[in-house]
Formats: sequence, structure tokens, C-alpha cells
Amino acid sequence: MPNITLTTMVMIENPATGEVLVQDRLLSFKGLAFPGGHVDEDESLYDCAVREVLEETGLAVRNLQFCGIKHECWRETPEGEERRYFVFLYKTRDFAGTAIDTKEGLHFWATPEALKAQRARFTPWFEAYLPMFFDEHSEAFCLYPKPGDYTTREFVYY
Amino acid sequence: MPNITLTTMVMIENPATGEVLVQDRLLSFKGLAFPGGHVDEDESLYDCAVREVLEETGLAVRNLQFCGIKHECWRETPEGEERRYFVFLYKTRDFAGTAIDTKEGLHFWATPEALKAQRARFTPWFEAYLPMFFDEHSEAFCLYPKPGDYTTREFVYY
Repeated sequence: MPNITLTTMVMIENPATGEVLVQDRLLSFKGLAFPGGHVDEDESLYDCAVREVLEETGLAVRNLQFCGIKHECWRETPEGEERRYFVFLYKTRDFAGTAIDTKEGLHFWATPEALKAQRARFTPWFEAYLPMFFDEHSEAFCLYPKPGDYTTREFVYY
Repeated sequence: MPNITLTTMVMIENPATGEVLVQDRLLSFKGLAFPGGHVDEDESLYDCAVREVLEETGLAVRNLQFCGIKHECWRETPEGEERRYFVFLYKTRDFAGTAIDTKEGLHFWATPEALKAQRARFTPWFEAYLPMFFDEHSEAFCLYPKPGDYTTREFVYY
């Protein structure tokens, strides 16, 4: 049975401006990304996404649309068990409240073009998420074929 | 770290007739459902879906569209670890070959209406999958709040 981590991430779009809410992460995986986090015990993926956005940004989101999966697979040693890390991705244009900064990160609104122009500030994997948020892809699968080697990897989009 | 099972299921539609391929399962979970199965080591969800359809039905499918997640969460004892069972759902209208019967199941084509009229023959959970295949839902979450009791459950659709 693989060791699996379940997380979510949400792109919130302001329908009046076309801007999306960007998180400048202050704790783990520092850099630019969207808000989200780990699935709690007894929690659905959708409820996790709503809860994490509220906790991290102060925004109450509704009517989330599922838009894809970021999916990594690796072993830490040749004999080690398989590990997988999932990020379930959502987008929404339905929110209430004003975004606040929290210990998780600073938040600001940016057009998709302005966000994409700041690639150098992205968290290590955030660029890999964009085809699911902005294009029609539904899965980004990243296999690390050599146990313990995280520089050799194969990225496939579906 | 929860104990998690990863599986896929695929609805194949014949665009010429509007019929979908139904599997009458012969091994585990006997009854009517769609083809699919467990994710292999080092395998993406998408590749699992394509492989399982070929193995079980003889059809080569392409251009699969992700359409939702069936997601159960339970404990076998109050102190037991959390368990989750995922079925990642896809649909496609792009296939080659002729469906054959295999040890996994017998296969036949039916209109969605004819399929839905055979609810009494469904596998135990198959009816819960239909809102993702035929409607706009993206997640069916089933929580068993009482460890070891699989009759008390809460079903939520997102």
C-alpha cells in the first residue's frame, strides 16, 4: 500500500477584473503559488479546498470547479515503499470577503499574464500546475524513476 | 498517513449510437458497472484507465476526459488508521477494436436510459458514480462515521 499525501489548491478569479489571487508563501515551499493545503481526517477534497482558502486568505469561496490533478510518484530507496503526492486543483469565480495576509503567506491579485511573468518567483513546482488551471489538461504526472534522485524526473501531461 | 487505494473507471460512449459499454463483473463486486481497476506501481491515473480498459474489454481508448472522483473514507476500528478508497473517473468517445468478454466480465452496449433501468443489477456502489458520469458533479464523498459500521454512511456530492 503506497504512502500517499493528499492536498488541494485553488485558483480564485475576480470576474470583474480577470485577476487571480496569488499567494506569496512564507512557510514551506516559499514563493508564489495559489492557496491550499493538506486534507484533514474525515474530510472530502472539496471541503478541504474551501477550508484552506478561508484559513489562509480570509475569503469564503463557493461553486468550486474541479480542474485537474498534480501527481508525483517516487521511492526514497530502491527497497522503499512507493510514495505519491497528490494536489487536487480547483478554480472558482465565486467568493466573499477581502483577502488578508496570514502566517501562511501574503496575498495579492494579478492578471494571469502578470503572474506568468513572475516565473522566477514561483514555488519549485508551481509552473507545472498552470496547464491544469489555464489549459485543458487534467493530470500532470511526475515520476522519479531513480529512488532517492529527485533531479531525474519524467513529467507527463494528460 | 492514511491507507489509500487508487483505482480508475471509464465510460466508453459510441458516438454513432449513443450507447455506453457496460461491464457485467464476474469476479469481485459482481454486477453492472464500467471497466476499470487498480493503479499499478509507477503508473499515472490516466495510463491506468487506458490499460485497464484494454485488458478488460479489448478496446484501445484515447482522448479520455477526466469527469470526477468517487471517494470513500472510513476506519475499521476506533483506534484504526484512516482508510480511503478513490475511483478516478473518465469518459471517452474515442476507441478502436471490438469489445470482448474476459475473465473480469461480460461486456455489452446499452443506452444510458437502458443502463439506468437496470439499477437492481448494479454493483453495490455503481449508482453513486452516475452523477459524475452523466451530470456535472466532480466528487462523490462517502464518510462512514462509525468505525467498523458500513451501514451508517453519509454521501455528499460536489
